[in-house]
Amino acid sequence: MKLEKYNEMEKKAREFFQKANIIVREDEPVEVSDFGLNRVDEIGLQLCVYINTERVCAKEMVLFPYQTCPEHKHVGSGDQAGKEETFRCRYGEVYLYVEGEGEAEKINGKLPPTDTTVYHEVILRPGEQYTIMPGTLHWFQAGAEGAVVSEFSTKSTDETDVFTDGEIVRQTKIED
Amino acid sequence: MKLEKYNEMEKKAREFFQKANIIVREDEPVEVSDFGLNRVDEIGLQLCVYINTERVCAKEMVLFPYQTCPEHKHVGSGDQAGKEETFRCRYGEVYLYVEGEGEAEKINGKLPPTDTTVYHEVILRPGEQYTIMPGTLHWFQAGAEGAVVSEFSTKSTDETDVFTDGEIVRQTKIED
Repeated sequence: MKLEKYNEMEKKAREFFQKANIIVREDEPVEVSDFGLNRVDEIGLQLCVYINTERVCAKEMVLFPYQTCPEHKHVGSGDQAGKEETFRCRYGEVYLYVEGEGEAEKINGKLPPTDTTVYHEVILRPGEQYTIMPGTLHWFQAGAEGAVVSEFSTKSTDETDVFTDGEIVRQTKIED
Repeated sequence: MKLEKYNEMEKKAREFFQKANIIVREDEPVEVSDFGLNRVDEIGLQLCVYINTERVCAKEMVLFPYQTCPEHKHVGSGDQAGKEETFRCRYGEVYLYVEGEGEAEKINGKLPPTDTTVYHEVILRPGEQYTIMPGTLHWFQAGAEGAVVSEFSTKSTDETDVFTDGEIVRQTKIED
């Protein structure tokens, strides 16, 4: 992703936090991830990690309208169980897809330009939440207004995320 | 605590969530705790637990002006380490007291009518946060406007909290 684009997305994410009445300090980093696909408007995620220790993680995420966080699951490593996470919608609407009954043709979200295999739909509106247990494939997308979502979880270790789309790399590469 | 008082505090807590732009659904319980001291205006806490599993807990807390959550620490039990928690202020001002340098006579908060022994002061304003590791004595109080505070932590097990004031019982008794 170009640095100029990265900065533009970061600025927009901070505006979304303001709109959702969530205070993120100027000195707190807001990360933009394009999952290495370099089409961040469609496949991407903006996030502010509040805390991430050996035991607990909390972050605030922004998704722009119809922007998608691509399908993945959290697996364990060594004697550490995989990440368990709860999403709580704070603003907008989130289309969350997990394993279970559901068909690609019948979802309310838009099929994203990245591999997906699970289509059990959970729609989250402000004040609604859903818990994803380790090893469960999931992907999610904001509705027409975009979305702000809090995540409460065990330790975040992006390097152990398993993405369905083989083209994805979790670390965003920023070019001048 | 009388049921009428309990209901009044719960209603006020929901109004605080609204004022802080935090959406708590009508069907989500908001708990009022008086820590068994039956003087909830001074010693008490209102909370909505979003999630509390074996590994992760997240809750939203309300403190009314100068209301105090009394001094305690989280200890382990069996092979489970004690609770680790991060407080993030969302609204108002929080006076947090932890172990470390500090004197009772010099704090900005008001000394509460319950035993306290630690006075290292941390003041949290909206967007500011602090992490309390297991076994650390702490107590906290809202400033003049009251406060709303998010807590991100490992599993909450109130029964393993150790309070400094021997009169305290964590379970609130509600009378008709």
